[in-house]
Amino acid sequence: MYKIGFIGLGIMGKPMARNLLKAGYQLVVYDINIDAMKDLVKDGAKEGKSPGDVASQSEVIITMLPNSPEVREVVLGDNGVIDGVRSGSVLIDMSSIAPLTSKEVAEKLQQKGVVMLDAPVSGGEPKAIDGTLAIMVGGPQETFDKVKDILGLMGASVKLVGDIGSGNITKLANQIIVALNIAAIGEAMTLAAKAGVNPERVYEAIKSGLAGSTALDAKMPMILNGNFKPGFRIELHIKDLMNALETARELNVPDTLTRKVLEIMQSLKADGKAKNDHGGLIQYYEKLADVEVRKK
Amino acid sequence: MYKIGFIGLGIMGKPMARNLLKAGYQLVVYDINIDAMKDLVKDGAKEGKSPGDVASQSEVIITMLPNSPEVREVVLGDNGVIDGVRSGSVLIDMSSIAPLTSKEVAEKLQQKGVVMLDAPVSGGEPKAIDGTLAIMVGGPQETFDKVKDILGLMGASVKLVGDIGSGNITKLANQIIVALNIAAIGEAMTLAAKAGVNPERVYEAIKSGLAGSTALDAKMPMILNGNFKPGFRIELHIKDLMNALETARELNVPDTLTRKVLEIMQSLKADGKAKNDHGGLIQYYEKLADVEVRKK
Repeated sequence: MYKIGFIGLGIMGKPMARNLLKAGYQLVVYDINIDAMKDLVKDGAKEGKSPGDVASQSEVIITMLPNSPEVREVVLGDNGVIDGVRSGSVLIDMSSIAPLTSKEVAEKLQQKGVVMLDAPVSGGEPKAIDGTLAIMVGGPQETFDKVKDILGLMGASVKLVGDIGSGNITKLANQIIVALNIAAIGEAMTLAAKAGVNPERVYEAIKSGLAGSTALDAKMPMILNGNFKPGFRIELHIKDLMNALETARELNVPDTLTRKVLEIMQSLKADGKAKNDHGGLIQYYEKLADVEVRKK
Repeated sequence: MYKIGFIGLGIMGKPMARNLLKAGYQLVVYDINIDAMKDLVKDGAKEGKSPGDVASQSEVIITMLPNSPEVREVVLGDNGVIDGVRSGSVLIDMSSIAPLTSKEVAEKLQQKGVVMLDAPVSGGEPKAIDGTLAIMVGGPQETFDKVKDILGLMGASVKLVGDIGSGNITKLANQIIVALNIAAIGEAMTLAAKAGVNPERVYEAIKSGLAGSTALDAKMPMILNGNFKPGFRIELHIKDLMNALETARELNVPDTLTRKVLEIMQSLKADGKAKNDHGGLIQYYEKLADVEVRKK
């Protein structure tokens, strides 16, 4: 069994690390939040002094951080992973970050004889706790094969999609589709409600046709109850779409609709809704159209 | 059994009328295309001389026409339905038109003692042939109950959603969602392909999560094969979205994303793709990004 280092013990990282401990792995952990680290130590993990210290004691290092700058800092910065890591180790970055950052960090690690995988997840806190995340992986097949079992303790679906960066590209594609499917519901259902048609009946009439989607089934109950407790917060979806726009511009791919839905989410953030579930996007339409889309 | 008049024997109307004949209904039919009428006469229908003539011989009149202007012309114009129709008859307009036109035409008919339902369909030619369309109905409950069995011969799902106009409002909501779900696939998969990730693997990695949809499962095989035979043509989706924009503006509902996806479809029409399936929307992104999203 590999010795595992785990850096980043937030809402997602903490339950993911716990699932590795439960399976019997030796874990060295690190987080700037001392309390989060202490919680894991109670569960049997060893406390690391820095990312570099964690790396020096591990064969497989997992990072689960907010965004690209934090990954750069933790891996390449002072006392970073790169300072302590041993040749032959594997770094699995499970953060959702810009794919180009994954590539840049991987290149720096390669010079130290370390292979990196980017392996962002989808599914949120409940699936992190249950170990049933969807994990989208980029990197070499042989490295993927080496750590597949470890990833399988955190995810129900673990898929290698391509080279380094492909995991995050896939995550961005996922987030673009989810954002637009949710926005489509908002635009369509607000129109129906303002026209005096019961949105619940509209949903019943269209859900089994070509308009049907997982997002429609997941978000319509929230919308009909006017309850937007997260789930996945608008501010996190904004972060992902900013990374999508950055990537689209670097690659010269049109971002026509992604840019628009990002603007809608930013407008909701300005209106104090950043911590709502992204299903709350419909509130942008409700407010401008002066109508409520919910059960009467 | 009611005597039925059927006006509009195009790609959709012809098989729908045939399903009524097969069930044993007496049909009087009319179309400006004489050949289409002759085909139905061979199948046992009676030829009408004009919409008014059809109406004078029918208790239930069904119209299946391209758009709002044609419905106005056939119902309210010279020798129109309104000239021949008898008090107590029912008009079922199964065309996909602007909801406000449905309301206006229904008001005119009411003055003649005729009740109108708007009952647009979803599902395309194959489901018209099989009698398995989704039919979204607006109008009074008692009129719906009277003709429900007739609609059931053409549709697998027949749902009353609200007052007159509600059928077309529901259809517009459906078309907004479908257009945006399809465009989302285009924007996301072109980004993935341009980044060098295999779109088929992206699809496999995301389809069972929150990005999953009926449109994704229906259109990805077309996209991967680069085959955009219709199906539902881009030019028809443009028509529906124009009606959606008109309705959104009349009701003061934001049309942020619908307007954008309409512009993309219009750009494809200008590029000679009007008769492609709407799944071919991805070609807008492929051309601008200079990449092909298909199996290599």
